[in-house]
Amino acid sequence: MRLRFENIVAQLEKILLKYDCPPDKANLIATVMAENSLEGTYSHGVNRFPSLIKSIRLGHAKPKSEAALVAAFGGLESYDGNSGIGIPNAIFCTDRAIELAQRHGVGCVALRNTNHWLRAATYGYRACNAGMAAICFTNTLPNMPTWGALDCRLGNNPLVFAFPRKKGHLICDIAMSQFSYGALEVAALNKKQMPIDAGFDTAGNLTKDPGEVIKSQRILPTGYWKGAALAHLLDVFAAATALGNTTAAISEFGDNVDVSQMFIAINYRAIAPQPLSEKIIEKSVEYLLGSEEANESSSIIFTGQIALDTRNDNLKNGIPVNDNIWEEILSL
Amino acid sequence: MRLRFENIVAQLEKILLKYDCPPDKANLIATVMAENSLEGTYSHGVNRFPSLIKSIRLGHAKPKSEAALVAAFGGLESYDGNSGIGIPNAIFCTDRAIELAQRHGVGCVALRNTNHWLRAATYGYRACNAGMAAICFTNTLPNMPTWGALDCRLGNNPLVFAFPRKKGHLICDIAMSQFSYGALEVAALNKKQMPIDAGFDTAGNLTKDPGEVIKSQRILPTGYWKGAALAHLLDVFAAATALGNTTAAISEFGDNVDVSQMFIAINYRAIAPQPLSEKIIEKSVEYLLGSEEANESSSIIFTGQIALDTRNDNLKNGIPVNDNIWEEILSL
Repeated sequence: MRLRFENIVAQLEKILLKYDCPPDKANLIATVMAENSLEGTYSHGVNRFPSLIKSIRLGHAKPKSEAALVAAFGGLESYDGNSGIGIPNAIFCTDRAIELAQRHGVGCVALRNTNHWLRAATYGYRACNAGMAAICFTNTLPNMPTWGALDCRLGNNPLVFAFPRKKGHLICDIAMSQFSYGALEVAALNKKQMPIDAGFDTAGNLTKDPGEVIKSQRILPTGYWKGAALAHLLDVFAAATALGNTTAAISEFGDNVDVSQMFIAINYRAIAPQPLSEKIIEKSVEYLLGSEEANESSSIIFTGQIALDTRNDNLKNGIPVNDNIWEEILSL
Repeated sequence: MRLRFENIVAQLEKILLKYDCPPDKANLIATVMAENSLEGTYSHGVNRFPSLIKSIRLGHAKPKSEAALVAAFGGLESYDGNSGIGIPNAIFCTDRAIELAQRHGVGCVALRNTNHWLRAATYGYRACNAGMAAICFTNTLPNMPTWGALDCRLGNNPLVFAFPRKKGHLICDIAMSQFSYGALEVAALNKKQMPIDAGFDTAGNLTKDPGEVIKSQRILPTGYWKGAALAHLLDVFAAATALGNTTAAISEFGDNVDVSQMFIAINYRAIAPQPLSEKIIEKSVEYLLGSEEANESSSIIFTGQIALDTRNDNLKNGIPVNDNIWEEILSL
């Protein structure tokens, strides 16, 4: 089914209030989750709402918790998320990084003991809407083997680089696994192969077969050894700055609980007048879009373009939501 | 042949002085290039020295140029490299980011009109040695097609994430192409296949054959569409902050000339006491190294470990340098 943005927000908000979520947080969480679906990240939007309620019920995510300052030095701060819900904690820290960047040129906030922030791009867009460039990343539970390993001891630790643009922000939101388990499961259900190697089979060979990768649990890091290396770096970077949990510690919780995150905002407009930087960006986008297509079915895009196109379509025609999940949401 | 570190530095320094390089810069460049080889990045160390001299001769890299402040706001600054040699410009900006982070918690320096910095990891190690975490990146000339394209309109824009560690810093230095053209050329000469897909052949199929990729010029982005997206973001991020050239502009120069770079240093020890952060890091490295090996030939490593091992070996046994290139260097 396709639902209107406002209807989704109202429904999610109502349920969150029932689960002891303070009104301002309920509205924020509902809006962010609806926006994630609005921009086409269905796996990290409304369809994930029942999981959020489950984590509240289990006591993993505490609706009333507030992020508390741990330490501060100039444009650098760290916060304890106190096991609060991931979205309001991450929005708080993004906003704080923006404030710090307004005062200090750059703002960097490390956050510990927080929960799943859902879509990394959310925090990139938030910073861009405030006129800031941003780099944000999170660690996760172990869901990917390091290069040459059998067992999962790395998170797929999503990373976002974001740069503001008048005609639609440039957002690169990538997890350190080439595909998510969600994407593999959908393909396996539909008996489809992945377009490229998605991981290893149980015999240790690279395979496009999603079922084989689900069986071996050896999902492919983005860029093979490169994504494995970067995943470990992002994990340590966030956890050792926030004095929080690494993937090693999270592995003991059995879920994405009390993770560590990092939010960097750069007030580039303080040193680069916007008309000049916009001109540089537009020329770069034009140049890229002028590429010759490899074949009839390929289309040249820039980062963030699909989200922008999907947003416009979904605003006009409603947001696709899985029928069964919506029914489940109505029953919460 | 294998040469002592000190002998290499002395030889390169002597030549740089002949090419009008000021003494402090000559020593710095010679030391960095020898260190790149010392730590096993032979493609971006001594073997690249003849190219550097060529770019000085062509007037692309100006030995006497100094980086000059363009704009400043708190912990954020931008510099014009004035077409100086890449290494001293990048070292200057790394050091400046460190100083800014010492004062403001975070330091961010954007640099324009500079030349090839050789190895991204150099600047990560430099920051780590000063007790700082770091994120640095550069753009390059176009050498990679974007996803779905035939022609090269993206740089492979190397990116480094670095975090200090007592037993050897954690450094993740990755280009946005899965392999460098240098690596493909070496494999093609030795009639070897790459271990994984390295790009597309002229018929548009993924291939491990380095010769086919050199023919098509369609090298594979790291993580397929993901590396293509991140490459574009890094390009715009550095260029629009520094008000410098993007890959689109560099494409008109026909070489890696007047590129744009970004240096971010984070003074995490100001908010995270080192004994606590070190403990978090060691537990994470131990956990990763405890992975089960996929097969007898695989070895589990963490980021930066190979460089550390190679450094120790090369300090003891001398640094491998290509015989022909060393002869060429002696004739410069």
